[in-house]
Amino acid sequence: MEWISQKNILIVGLGLMGGSYARALKRLGFHVCAIDTDSESIRWAEENGIIDRGYDRVDEATVRDADAIIFALYPRVFLEWIRENQHLFKPGLRMTDVTGVKSCVVYDVQGMLRDDVEFIAAHPMAGREVYGVKNSDDRIFRDANYIVVPTEKNTREAIDWCRGLGQILGFRHIAELSPEAHDEMIGFVSQLTHVIAVSLMTCSDNTHLVDYTGDSFRDLTRIARINDRMWSELFMMNREPLLKQMDTFLAEMNGFREMLRQGDTEGMREKMRLSTQRRALFDRK
Amino acid sequence: MEWISQKNILIVGLGLMGGSYARALKRLGFHVCAIDTDSESIRWAEENGIIDRGYDRVDEATVRDADAIIFALYPRVFLEWIRENQHLFKPGLRMTDVTGVKSCVVYDVQGMLRDDVEFIAAHPMAGREVYGVKNSDDRIFRDANYIVVPTEKNTREAIDWCRGLGQILGFRHIAELSPEAHDEMIGFVSQLTHVIAVSLMTCSDNTHLVDYTGDSFRDLTRIARINDRMWSELFMMNREPLLKQMDTFLAEMNGFREMLRQGDTEGMREKMRLSTQRRALFDRK
Repeated sequence: MEWISQKNILIVGLGLMGGSYARALKRLGFHVCAIDTDSESIRWAEENGIIDRGYDRVDEATVRDADAIIFALYPRVFLEWIRENQHLFKPGLRMTDVTGVKSCVVYDVQGMLRDDVEFIAAHPMAGREVYGVKNSDDRIFRDANYIVVPTEKNTREAIDWCRGLGQILGFRHIAELSPEAHDEMIGFVSQLTHVIAVSLMTCSDNTHLVDYTGDSFRDLTRIARINDRMWSELFMMNREPLLKQMDTFLAEMNGFREMLRQGDTEGMREKMRLSTQRRALFDRK
Repeated sequence: MEWISQKNILIVGLGLMGGSYARALKRLGFHVCAIDTDSESIRWAEENGIIDRGYDRVDEATVRDADAIIFALYPRVFLEWIRENQHLFKPGLRMTDVTGVKSCVVYDVQGMLRDDVEFIAAHPMAGREVYGVKNSDDRIFRDANYIVVPTEKNTREAIDWCRGLGQILGFRHIAELSPEAHDEMIGFVSQLTHVIAVSLMTCSDNTHLVDYTGDSFRDLTRIARINDRMWSELFMMNREPLLKQMDTFLAEMNGFREMLRQGDTEGMREKMRLSTQRRALFDRK
């Protein structure tokens, strides 16, 4: 396993996801350093043995020593960070990320990168409704999907390296998608669902209903607790695919509304049967 | 406790909910009979000690002996059943139900009933995605809300009797709402959420995405497995309140779409912050 030769891992951005990667990789025996502007996160992670060493600024020696870098930053910050620091990268360095959108990140990063290093994008589809390294937990990977997102610029070696990372982190399922297919998929299964949950929560003042809610409402709004800075950025970076998914959903729901208005019971039942049949496929085997 | 004097309970409709009531009441020492047109359900429930005695047709002696009847039928069937059989009711009989919509059931039932018996509506907000007496389970009441839905025709005694039933069944929280307030609430927290889940499942063929879904999509579509006959009937019986809730939600989501299209990041973040703040109230204490 090629991973064994890569001793020094640097994690840039030590929040929930960076911290979860750190926990898993340190347990596997890697030397794990981290850089994050929040010195309290760094101090806490060092004291709790989640990382070997951390810095609240770019420590040049640590960047130079890194065999692999994992970026767990907000998309825009991530591009800037590479631009400013790539002169420090060790030749042959491999990098990956955890960013939730791909088309508008991957091509820019690969376009600006030095020729002797490689960036291979990935999206660990895991998360929690809480934030920060203190809430990090690598058990969130167990039931989750890990998507490797290669472009034509990527080598087979780097793709396999990235798949290997998903494996050792403990993901349940590893897949490969193009940036465009990834963004369309994520616009549907993740972003559209978050827009729905938020809209359901904000469409009327429902706080007086807290004593009457059943599990349906709780389930549909669990993800309505949302990091507004991160998600608004992700939405804007995936604007066209998300608009398209929203339009498809809105048209469908308007169609259902029309059936209800007209009393088309059979039409509604047909939709419900299709829904039931499809949803059955999504139950965990 | 008045409940102690009511020995003979008759459950009409022995499905998931009727069966769950039967289990709880039998364990509490009541004599529980059931009527359901499905003879297989009746046989199975008798053999498994869920009821004392069951019939796949209206057994006149059993109806005459009942001190209390619980209707766990589809709304329309329920009205017919009372019309046809109320001549058998013991004077002073108390009845309640489990129907998910109220305005268009309660007034009709109370309007046609004999003067010497009383119907007090209730809605146990519990359920599962599976059906039938074989899946019944009275543990579904533990974390659930029980809503008593009185009208001006109801006596305080019957309302308290009904609250008492919710208590002995083991519901977490018991509340009272008028039929109109109930239907508006249920249009929002239950029916609208089901329409959303179904529309999300039917708006495009998403079955190839089964390997990529995270928990968000699973959570939002759990209730997309739906009993089409029951839910289409419930929707039609609560058409106006549900249309109103759908319109409010669709307007809100269209507004969010417009913010995304215009790149109004601050507007989206404000919605997300409101959503996050409201949702926090709904976490179980």
